[in-house]
Amino acid sequence: MTRGYNFGAGPAMLPEVILREIQQELLDWQGQGMSVMEIGHRTEAFRELLSSAARSLRELIAIPENYHVLFLGGAARTQFAMIPMNFLGEEDKAAYLVSGYWSSMAFQEAANLKKAYVAASGEHYDYLKAPPENEHVFNQHSTYVYYTPNETINGLRFAKIPEAGEHALVADMTSCLLTEPVEVSKFGLIFAGAQKNIANAGLTLVIIRDDLLALNPRKKIPAMLDYRLHVDHQSIYATPPVFNCYVAAKMFEWVKKQGGVDALYRLNCLKAERLYTYIDSSGFYCCDIEKESRSKVNICFRLLRQELTEPFLAFASRQQLYALKGHRLKGGLRASLYNAMPMSAVERLIECMREFAEEYHH
Amino acid sequence: MTRGYNFGAGPAMLPEVILREIQQELLDWQGQGMSVMEIGHRTEAFRELLSSAARSLRELIAIPENYHVLFLGGAARTQFAMIPMNFLGEEDKAAYLVSGYWSSMAFQEAANLKKAYVAASGEHYDYLKAPPENEHVFNQHSTYVYYTPNETINGLRFAKIPEAGEHALVADMTSCLLTEPVEVSKFGLIFAGAQKNIANAGLTLVIIRDDLLALNPRKKIPAMLDYRLHVDHQSIYATPPVFNCYVAAKMFEWVKKQGGVDALYRLNCLKAERLYTYIDSSGFYCCDIEKESRSKVNICFRLLRQELTEPFLAFASRQQLYALKGHRLKGGLRASLYNAMPMSAVERLIECMREFAEEYHH
Repeated sequence: MTRGYNFGAGPAMLPEVILREIQQELLDWQGQGMSVMEIGHRTEAFRELLSSAARSLRELIAIPENYHVLFLGGAARTQFAMIPMNFLGEEDKAAYLVSGYWSSMAFQEAANLKKAYVAASGEHYDYLKAPPENEHVFNQHSTYVYYTPNETINGLRFAKIPEAGEHALVADMTSCLLTEPVEVSKFGLIFAGAQKNIANAGLTLVIIRDDLLALNPRKKIPAMLDYRLHVDHQSIYATPPVFNCYVAAKMFEWVKKQGGVDALYRLNCLKAERLYTYIDSSGFYCCDIEKESRSKVNICFRLLRQELTEPFLAFASRQQLYALKGHRLKGGLRASLYNAMPMSAVERLIECMREFAEEYHH
Repeated sequence: MTRGYNFGAGPAMLPEVILREIQQELLDWQGQGMSVMEIGHRTEAFRELLSSAARSLRELIAIPENYHVLFLGGAARTQFAMIPMNFLGEEDKAAYLVSGYWSSMAFQEAANLKKAYVAASGEHYDYLKAPPENEHVFNQHSTYVYYTPNETINGLRFAKIPEAGEHALVADMTSCLLTEPVEVSKFGLIFAGAQKNIANAGLTLVIIRDDLLALNPRKKIPAMLDYRLHVDHQSIYATPPVFNCYVAAKMFEWVKKQGGVDALYRLNCLKAERLYTYIDSSGFYCCDIEKESRSKVNICFRLLRQELTEPFLAFASRQQLYALKGHRLKGGLRASLYNAMPMSAVERLIECMREFAEEYHH
């Protein structure tokens, strides 16, 4: 068996060493005589797993004491509703920086449920550039400012944290948490779906500053959408996705072994730079995103001869380089280079792109 | 390595043969060169997995054409909110049969969000008996009637489906789906968390009759809580818990191989009967639940000498019979005998209980 490389935006690759560990432990976890999939979520063993995972994450990105770490079941998209429902009363409003598909979805959900407004939009740049700071217009009485540091579909990244002043900053880090350093104390809330850099799909991490819990209007919120309940019950108000938490705990240890987030960030920058440099110099592929706004983990590009997109995907697939198709809303190509994607795979991809270009460059 | 037996109410045991298959396929699923945990949820391969799983479930419990099957991420408890939010307008109300902890939680959530009332309660029986049909009082204009056919904490079961007349019947089958035959056409909606009989924790199955989707008030529902969206997007509106869906697909095939739900039900009846018979005749253990209301899958009992509870749990644990402690709200003991628990394990448990009784019966 040869393992291929999955360049999909998520669910994404996991390190082979982690998969082998999981495989080995599958029938008997820690000598418990059971699979980790069979372990009760209220057992000592699972509670220890969860608190150890939280400790590792706290260590990895230096989460201050006044922040809670939650391991919630389900997709990150649920946060689009939880954030306005937990933080906005009837008269409050929130500011959204709309830089692409995901921030736009989050804004629409907030606007449907509560009062939200667009504080800046990348629409007039065709979402090829993060809305620059001098275009951010915050209403003085906004409860929070929401943004998506990395947009997976258009491959766009905010090069710096927006200046939100006194407003609590809320960030969807689904695609970038643990891929680059983050100064947690600048944020009110950070959340991330697990399926890119943290674990398999079905888990959402939430890092929430304690004082924000007091904003909760305390009525008419479904229990499962109430951050306070999850904090009070230390993520086991309901049965959590036990197996995903177990995978996350392993991934946090793996990140430590790679030298931590700083080391991975240096590598991620190098991986991205190498691919963008080849694309820009190829005369066969191109990337439309403004250089300063280019994602480090979702490299969106296209073939100058658009009709070669499908042949390219088939060509790459034969070399076991999978899921390079761009998102259905955007088209073109996309290579997601999350933490588990090694430099050697990026080199193989570039080599494959070069071969394909040579074959068709006539 | 000897595998033990997990009598916990959930997450529960999985058949060893399934665990071994998962183990074997962990690094390369279906020759894809990737783990199933790495497979994109919009790939052909995953869509095929999901529709094949849905077909198997439809076959197993004869789900009629006018019902949708959803595979949703997260815990079943989210349904407590989704049901009233999707089905009740401002003036509508719903009837709840309260037979124990879970139905009571579901009622409280509905009452917090919308108009719900208790149509019958087992409280005056100390929840040792399902509220009998002559005590059910439905308001004529109730949109649905909600009940919990099997309550895991008090080990109580409705011996028959309540007569709901023209009202849509909604049932939380988290602990009993696939353990006994079910006439789906009698229900408007059935849901079940996966971690007892379907897969590992983190997945919720919903079976919903098509006409109920029209009840949706179409406003101010968080997208992730909107059944219509999940139906329209065939369970992949957001990233679903891919791995859990894969486990569920395997479990459905396993149920078929066991002879289907009818065969498992006969076995479950036998397992429960054998344990209750021993308890009732032991003079050392006892079960307080009225005979007709006794659960087939969560056998709640206690020691007549309550001070022996902890020694019994330690004694059983040494024989690799785990998680026999009753729920923290109820105390005593509980043996959950879901589909994956073999008769041989029930026999070992009875033998262990007998040995313990002999040791302390002086």
